[in-house]
Amino acid sequence: MPASGPDPIQELIAALARLPGIGEKTAARLAFHILDQPEVYAQELARALVAVKARVRLCGECQDLTEDDPCRRCRDQSRDRTVVCVVARPQDLRAVDRTGAFRGRYHVLHGVLSPLDGVGPDQLRIKELLRRLEGGEVREVIVATGPSVEGEATALYLSRLIAPAGATVSRLAVGLPVGGDLEYADQATLGRALENRTPVGPGGGEGAGTTKR
Amino acid sequence: MPASGPDPIQELIAALARLPGIGEKTAARLAFHILDQPEVYAQELARALVAVKARVRLCGECQDLTEDDPCRRCRDQSRDRTVVCVVARPQDLRAVDRTGAFRGRYHVLHGVLSPLDGVGPDQLRIKELLRRLEGGEVREVIVATGPSVEGEATALYLSRLIAPAGATVSRLAVGLPVGGDLEYADQATLGRALENRTPVGPGGGEGAGTTKR
Repeated sequence: MPASGPDPIQELIAALARLPGIGEKTAARLAFHILDQPEVYAQELARALVAVKARVRLCGECQDLTEDDPCRRCRDQSRDRTVVCVVARPQDLRAVDRTGAFRGRYHVLHGVLSPLDGVGPDQLRIKELLRRLEGGEVREVIVATGPSVEGEATALYLSRLIAPAGATVSRLAVGLPVGGDLEYADQATLGRALENRTPVGPGGGEGAGTTKR
Repeated sequence: MPASGPDPIQELIAALARLPGIGEKTAARLAFHILDQPEVYAQELARALVAVKARVRLCGECQDLTEDDPCRRCRDQSRDRTVVCVVARPQDLRAVDRTGAFRGRYHVLHGVLSPLDGVGPDQLRIKELLRRLEGGEVREVIVATGPSVEGEATALYLSRLIAPAGATVSRLAVGLPVGGDLEYADQATLGRALENRTPVGPGGGEGAGTTKR
């Protein structure tokens, strides 16, 4: 007996093709792979999809995605409360955390200023950041937005807002990647690496071009 | 209050990373995109995943993936019952069907012979194909497996099984792709294109190297 309704394979392909970077052909490949797998795989993936939206919310303090409010990192008393690292997106927070080089607190803006895309200060979690600075406990805010035009503009905007609160504002260094080759570096990056050159030898380690320290 | 159990974001990333061609980084990008979308999107994708496995089965005749048994194409009386196009995978059937150049029936093997991967004749839907040929109605079987070693071996194997049933067996032509450039064609393809050259002009159209016709 003919079933009613649209073809479930086409429906799955259409749903998958709405993911970023997944075209119609890749979506079809994924759909047929899923069809080829035991039913439990599709069920597990479906369960994970529903769970992630049902259980994950924003931490009231750092605005990161979390199941618990306050989140694990905000509850961690071993983390330095005097330094806040501001990132654009939750995945940036995880990238910074993976380095193991930062043991302070985080704050997620959920975007960067981008007037052309209709993203102004009110669309970002800036009010929540300023509220966290009110106690005067925070000494330094590291604005770890990316070195793009929007990321730089966001950092500049935040530095002006934060200055009155008494905290110093710093940025991530821009320069050559570790293991990077001068020959293949883009002009802008190489230019910034030159500008932000750091002294070598005894007493070295501080960036010659570093300001706001 | 801390939630128990694993992090739902990590769980989703792990489930997505099990898809073919999706690494850990792409899976993370997809997961954070899904988190960024309205809840209804994750729910729709989850529903499509469960539906595809719950509703799709194999057609008892052509062995294609279908909701209905027999499938839409097997029920279509306008399709030529005397020609069967044998393909390795359901997605290959769809590729042939999209050309609009074939109006016969299909048969899906669900793989090609590959002894090194443990795929022998019993793992493929070959018995079901031979059963379809028993009536003597089928005149021609087009073995449309890919021009790989396994695809060719499968075609040769099938041709030996099918010959006693009285049907002729043909293969897809191998040659240059439409719009293809001789300079960039691989040696093997160009060699086969030369071997399978077709006459031009009045009386042309049949391949000079075509056999088994």
